[in-house]
Amino acid sequence: MVGPTMTVALLSIGTELLRGEVANSNATWLAEELTLLGFTVAVVETVPDEPEALGEALRRLGSRHDWLIATGGLGPTSDDVTAAVAAEVTGRELQCDQDALAAIEHELEHRGQPLRPGHEKQAWVPAGSELLPNARGTAPGFLVRLSRAAAFFLPGVSHEMQQIFREHVCPRIAAAAPRTSFQICLRTYGAAESLVGERLSGLEQEFTGLVLGYCVRGPEVDVKLLVRATSYAQAREQAEAAARSARERLGALVYGEGEDTLPRLARRLLREKGWRLAAAESCTGGLLSELLTSEPASDFFVGSAVTYANSAKTALLGVSEEALRGHGAVSAEVAAEMAEGARRALGCEAALAVTGIAGPSGSSSGKPVGLCFWAVAHPGGTRVEHATFAGSRTEVQRHAALAAFDLLRRTVS
Amino acid sequence: MVGPTMTVALLSIGTELLRGEVANSNATWLAEELTLLGFTVAVVETVPDEPEALGEALRRLGSRHDWLIATGGLGPTSDDVTAAVAAEVTGRELQCDQDALAAIEHELEHRGQPLRPGHEKQAWVPAGSELLPNARGTAPGFLVRLSRAAAFFLPGVSHEMQQIFREHVCPRIAAAAPRTSFQICLRTYGAAESLVGERLSGLEQEFTGLVLGYCVRGPEVDVKLLVRATSYAQAREQAEAAARSARERLGALVYGEGEDTLPRLARRLLREKGWRLAAAESCTGGLLSELLTSEPASDFFVGSAVTYANSAKTALLGVSEEALRGHGAVSAEVAAEMAEGARRALGCEAALAVTGIAGPSGSSSGKPVGLCFWAVAHPGGTRVEHATFAGSRTEVQRHAALAAFDLLRRTVS
Repeated sequence: MVGPTMTVALLSIGTELLRGEVANSNATWLAEELTLLGFTVAVVETVPDEPEALGEALRRLGSRHDWLIATGGLGPTSDDVTAAVAAEVTGRELQCDQDALAAIEHELEHRGQPLRPGHEKQAWVPAGSELLPNARGTAPGFLVRLSRAAAFFLPGVSHEMQQIFREHVCPRIAAAAPRTSFQICLRTYGAAESLVGERLSGLEQEFTGLVLGYCVRGPEVDVKLLVRATSYAQAREQAEAAARSARERLGALVYGEGEDTLPRLARRLLREKGWRLAAAESCTGGLLSELLTSEPASDFFVGSAVTYANSAKTALLGVSEEALRGHGAVSAEVAAEMAEGARRALGCEAALAVTGIAGPSGSSSGKPVGLCFWAVAHPGGTRVEHATFAGSRTEVQRHAALAAFDLLRRTVS
Repeated sequence: MVGPTMTVALLSIGTELLRGEVANSNATWLAEELTLLGFTVAVVETVPDEPEALGEALRRLGSRHDWLIATGGLGPTSDDVTAAVAAEVTGRELQCDQDALAAIEHELEHRGQPLRPGHEKQAWVPAGSELLPNARGTAPGFLVRLSRAAAFFLPGVSHEMQQIFREHVCPRIAAAAPRTSFQICLRTYGAAESLVGERLSGLEQEFTGLVLGYCVRGPEVDVKLLVRATSYAQAREQAEAAARSARERLGALVYGEGEDTLPRLARRLLREKGWRLAAAESCTGGLLSELLTSEPASDFFVGSAVTYANSAKTALLGVSEEALRGHGAVSAEVAAEMAEGARRALGCEAALAVTGIAGPSGSSSGKPVGLCFWAVAHPGGTRVEHATFAGSRTEVQRHAALAAFDLLRRTVS
């Protein structure tokens, strides 16, 4: 093991986060970026837009960590207090930065909007802080020292925050990233965490400096193999050796590594194979297509028929009345006809289909909520699988979509 | 203003959260549930699966807050240390709870799985703690006192955590909810935060105890009107009066309140009108349908054609070669033909369509990334609108889908 590494604290500022009105996606994004850069994020803390709580957190985190990245509370409205509290905690005056004001006026002119008092407020930052220009909005970020920590304050609007982070934060911190650890993440599908853990039992004893971590994401289990060593090269070598051993123990459960996801793997396999894909969805209601198209997909993805009603299954996919009446919309027969119909209607080499009962109600004639059928139609034939998934409506939809991608991976690869 | 209220701290335990590998959806969910119950969530903190950091957070949060709800780190694998650290912080022994062990064995028997050593580990909880049974998984939660706080420890698997929270945490805390504040959230669409803030400027001075909060969610701005008073009835009355005044100032920008979202509003308006809906999507790739069907929708939603390729637009929707060649797939003409084609093919009163350039690449012949057209076809005709949205691919897709829902609201209501 090596000595203490430099640590980063993330501070998310916003009462709406503490009310659960929005997910804290900024913290997730920053944590991932910082981890990839080689930093250890030691804590993520969320506090309300209230001077007392915010001031206490800034003092505590600023004295314990080397870097502090705060987001939120720099907006134009009366509840945005971050700059004022940062000034108070650092014993500085809040002052109007003329460069910031000019940039705000320029941005508004570009948008054809007048300068409002709320906009002008955004140019007020702690005296002597370093300005971090915002190329996408009006609120600039700023950098100021908080006892031990270099503290970056960024706006809460995601795309503005991300742009400032990449343009102005990364260049200032990247050189300090302590590169003495290496992590490999194996992505698995098809087994519960306890089984995955059991297959890897004893692995930590075989490789010096190895720490195993498990992360359950719906039906998937990620296995993180982190190695800390005295050098980056050594850590990497050990991690790669441990990953090879883990892959042997886990076999086909491992579908990918690092940034892989089942939809990403599907995109890659289809491109390698030169196949175009169509889809037909019932209970997933568009989710399967959305997962495919959340990244560029127009080179292989032709389209999907989201056939929620039986009439749509017939109109768009030509599913037969016999199958719908004889077996019901949630059946192996209909799943197969949906996949074959999508493949035919959209002229593709392969098609995926999903039909099921997402819930919370809708169980009928002995078919429970959560029962889903999924199918792949391809030049070699049609395969159908099914399962009954537990969880909420959203979880059932997600499980079903991922099961279809897993079937595709096993079919194509 | 009233005196200090009882506060809740949320502690999320898991190294994967600090690496940005998964979003902290448990904290968002708990924060929303607790807020609805009337509690104030004072802080959300995320710490790694490491005894030292976890112990420090438990001691600090346990001494400052009345309730602590911790999630994560109760799993079967070696990185799960929560129960051991909770025992250490409270000065208790970790002991095997026989009821918990019996419940785990019962759950595994139900699943047809053998008891593994990792499962047995989950029955070890701090001595004298109160068990919170897990009806959906193997890891039970437990309740133990941590200096000031009653501390609930729950598993990190979402549906298990939610079930234990509803069954075992709520009944123990609900009676203590301090009902002396009332909040109304107005949801707006169509104006930037600064303009919304300006329209409401001075409102806080007109209503005693009113605190305004703003939350930007993509193209939407939520306005929170929170009133604290000496009684719940008084707080509620003031908040309702303030909300009426805010609605007058904001006019048609307000599309809803509370739990309303544009997709939810669309579902309600369509049901009221008795219209069935179809959709046709290009750049949103299924997102529009997914937003519609994330809650039950089979009584009005017939289906959607996700026509990613031009060939799919022709095959499923009958979009004309003339429109595609003469104006391009991203055009008002094609948006209109897509909506009309979906309405015709799926036999609905109304249809929404979206086409655009989600990016990051794909701009062509003078059409920039972010340019989107959306249309509604209905018995009274077809309307098309367009805009160029800023942000990432995902953000452009989301903006376009919401713009279509907003057009539907203005058309139907």
